[in-house]
Amino acid sequence: MMLPRTGIGVDIHAFDSAENPAPLWLAGLLWEGERGLSGHSDGDAVAHAAADALFSAAGVGDLGTHFGTDRPEYAGASGVKLLGEAARIVRAAGFEIGNIAVQFVGNRPKFSPRRQEAEAVLTAAAGAPVSVSATTSDGLGFPGRNEGITAYATALVVSLAPQESAGRDTLEP
Amino acid sequence: MMLPRTGIGVDIHAFDSAENPAPLWLAGLLWEGERGLSGHSDGDAVAHAAADALFSAAGVGDLGTHFGTDRPEYAGASGVKLLGEAARIVRAAGFEIGNIAVQFVGNRPKFSPRRQEAEAVLTAAAGAPVSVSATTSDGLGFPGRNEGITAYATALVVSLAPQESAGRDTLEP
Amino acid sequence: MMLPRTGIGVDIHAFDSAENPAPLWLAGLLWEGERGLSGHSDGDAVAHAAADALFSAAGVGDLGTHFGTDRPEYAGASGVKLLGEAARIVRAAGFEIGNIAVQFVGNRPKFSPRRQEAEAVLTAAAGAPVSVSATTSDGLGFPGRNEGITAYATALVVSLAPQESAGRDTLEP
Repeated sequence: MMLPRTGIGVDIHAFDSAENPAPLWLAGLLWEGERGLSGHSDGDAVAHAAADALFSAAGVGDLGTHFGTDRPEYAGASGVKLLGEAARIVRAAGFEIGNIAVQFVGNRPKFSPRRQEAEAVLTAAAGAPVSVSATTSDGLGFPGRNEGITAYATALVVSLAPQESAGRDTLEP
Repeated sequence: MMLPRTGIGVDIHAFDSAENPAPLWLAGLLWEGERGLSGHSDGDAVAHAAADALFSAAGVGDLGTHFGTDRPEYAGASGVKLLGEAARIVRAAGFEIGNIAVQFVGNRPKFSPRRQEAEAVLTAAAGAPVSVSATTSDGLGFPGRNEGITAYATALVVSLAPQESAGRDTLEP
Repeated sequence: MMLPRTGIGVDIHAFDSAENPAPLWLAGLLWEGERGLSGHSDGDAVAHAAADALFSAAGVGDLGTHFGTDRPEYAGASGVKLLGEAARIVRAAGFEIGNIAVQFVGNRPKFSPRRQEAEAVLTAAAGAPVSVSATTSDGLGFPGRNEGITAYATALVVSLAPQESAGRDTLEP
């Protein structure tokens, strides 16, 4: 039986504490007037969690494996670019992508007015449906203190190879 | 290939700090003698996470989209009612619900003696199998300080429409 | 339609604060020179989250149900042993295991050099593909303060019985 595979991704970024913080990029969108998230890239926790869930489902490592500090070509790369590249890597490993779902926990930005816009950008990047939802932590923990955002993601992929091992072999020819 | 879709939901509620707190509703059950969770509704983080995971899998928004403060008819609604309504919305959008799985992190209530009772109530509400499990945070973070509960959920749905886009169209005819 | 089922597992362990802490077991591996995690067992949060995700997907309870303090034969058991036993229980309940995916959040150990080794050990224990990935919390919360580790897992299983209820009946003959 050819079962699909599920994956999980969690990504946490702190809000930038600099006096002149960078702008906020989250869920593939620029949020004008919002304090940005820190990070070697743009700090887009939603896009990063989505990419990690894809890697997790396919069993091909994580963000650090593919875009770590030893890969200077990805320094400062946008979350959307990393998600697109993750989708390419997972497909090259022999998987079809079913969907990706992300929920982030944070007090801001106010997400619902731009949810469909964000989903369209991330869906285009991944080449598969990406849903994004939002909630708060009811004032608890670091999201409740406006210190940062946590994004949780899951993804579903299916191997196109007749056997599991065949799909993974394509990674290391 | 018609792949199922996976979704994720996270819901956090603080315990009520009032001198005469409301009773605790969690996982569809009333827990006598336990301090309640705060919230515009009954604060049932388990039921809310389950509903958000359904919405996330189907790609139709989140609790705020469907039951937000602009929908006064849901003010004070029970978690069980919201989960039932979420399942109805997801089916109306063209999806069959496979299952929902929730785990909550918190020091109390002691869950295992009533696990099957809770699963029966939530399964009846969703019209699909709902499993619920529990753990503690080993004394760490806000759950370890008895400040609140976090519930994590995942759900699996499948589009009944011949094409993905057809299922979503039913939302916006 | 025979849909697979998805499950979720979260496990949190504090680092041992004893003057002579136990060694660290995580993701089925011994990490020399690293402060251990506390727990009735070996504190392997990654293996425990994987086991809980399996139980959650199959709807057969959680770690406490199967390996709780009323089961002294599991006191001090390794995470790898518990994961293997969880897989046996889920199969005995009538399910095939598709895959398990885990991501942990913590500052240490540095995971990527031993990721494939860990995945091989856990995959052998579960008899199904287990992927493991890692991230940090960007300095936030208890993982950022080096107080502990959180592991998040998801699993996919499918009932081998012609009906859902038949699979569950095998638990309580």
